[in-house]
Amino acid sequence: MNNPHEPLTESVRSLIDAVIRTEVGTDKLAAAHAHVTAALELLSEQLMPGSFGVRVTPDGRSQPSGNVLIGQRNAIAPPLTVEHDDDGLVSTEVELGAAYEGPVGHVHGGVCSLILDHLLGATAHRPDGPAFTGTLQLRYVRPTPLGRLRAEAWVEHEDGRKTYARGRILSGGEPTVEAQGVFIRPRSAG
Amino acid sequence: MNNPHEPLTESVRSLIDAVIRTEVGTDKLAAAHAHVTAALELLSEQLMPGSFGVRVTPDGRSQPSGNVLIGQRNAIAPPLTVEHDDDGLVSTEVELGAAYEGPVGHVHGGVCSLILDHLLGATAHRPDGPAFTGTLQLRYVRPTPLGRLRAEAWVEHEDGRKTYARGRILSGGEPTVEAQGVFIRPRSAG
Repeated sequence: MNNPHEPLTESVRSLIDAVIRTEVGTDKLAAAHAHVTAALELLSEQLMPGSFGVRVTPDGRSQPSGNVLIGQRNAIAPPLTVEHDDDGLVSTEVELGAAYEGPVGHVHGGVCSLILDHLLGATAHRPDGPAFTGTLQLRYVRPTPLGRLRAEAWVEHEDGRKTYARGRILSGGEPTVEAQGVFIRPRSAG
Repeated sequence: MNNPHEPLTESVRSLIDAVIRTEVGTDKLAAAHAHVTAALELLSEQLMPGSFGVRVTPDGRSQPSGNVLIGQRNAIAPPLTVEHDDDGLVSTEVELGAAYEGPVGHVHGGVCSLILDHLLGATAHRPDGPAFTGTLQLRYVRPTPLGRLRAEAWVEHEDGRKTYARGRILSGGEPTVEAQGVFIRPRSAG
């Protein structure tokens, strides 16, 4: 891990979880708050305007470090590590804890849609440009418990700039949410 | 703000943003990281197991403080403040910054679906229990820029335990994402 932002981001991920689950008293909360304020002041001495966007490294890889799902500098991101198999399957294994809760003990339905949107979209991305969601349809088969999850997506068919993709989330090998969607590559991206 | 967790959570929200956008050098990154580690250690001295869940206050209000979208203790949550109008419209105004980015300068499509899932679901919730997403269909009309957004949802019709809802996200008064979905109240919740 050469990038010093990644371990910092990883600690902030743990911090998000700890703020939700802590049971310490007000004195320790105040002391923790003072440390967070100090960290914030240090980092804020020099901030880029706007958002991180997508940078390109000298060797041509794109670096969406601020991305809400895969960004290595975004503590909201679990982060998702998206694998592309030779046979076209796109998949990810992810552990979702207390910070992703909706119904008690379960992943928020909207977090499932967030992951599926990203994963189905990843079937349509090309090195010369990303694809944008056109439509997305989700069917919630059963509640998704917090914990270890798998998500996968694949191309059903392609039609010019449109990719028709399907995917699902699995918990303990059982599908919990199924999705299908149409993803569109802008004309400029070929 | 009597609850000491809320200002701490608010600072962690700012910290998430600053980690993404900071341009300070490695020395300051390391110093900030030391503060984050110290805060984490203090809060972790006593942690509840699992997740926050939904607590009920002495006066009977439910408190989903860990919820990923509305939780006052969850730094991932913008947080969303959901308004219920007398005429049945459910709405929210929210500012989404760098931490919610997908395409450059724009809200991740999946974050739009997360917000719409929550808001359409909110039309179906009852005091005696929440509703769960059955299906959700999203149509992305145009990209959603980072910044101030409005989202709204309403009931189209109800059929026993099922609520058919519609909604949309607006940026500068223009719809960017449209949604419809079916939300189901479990039998136990009446």
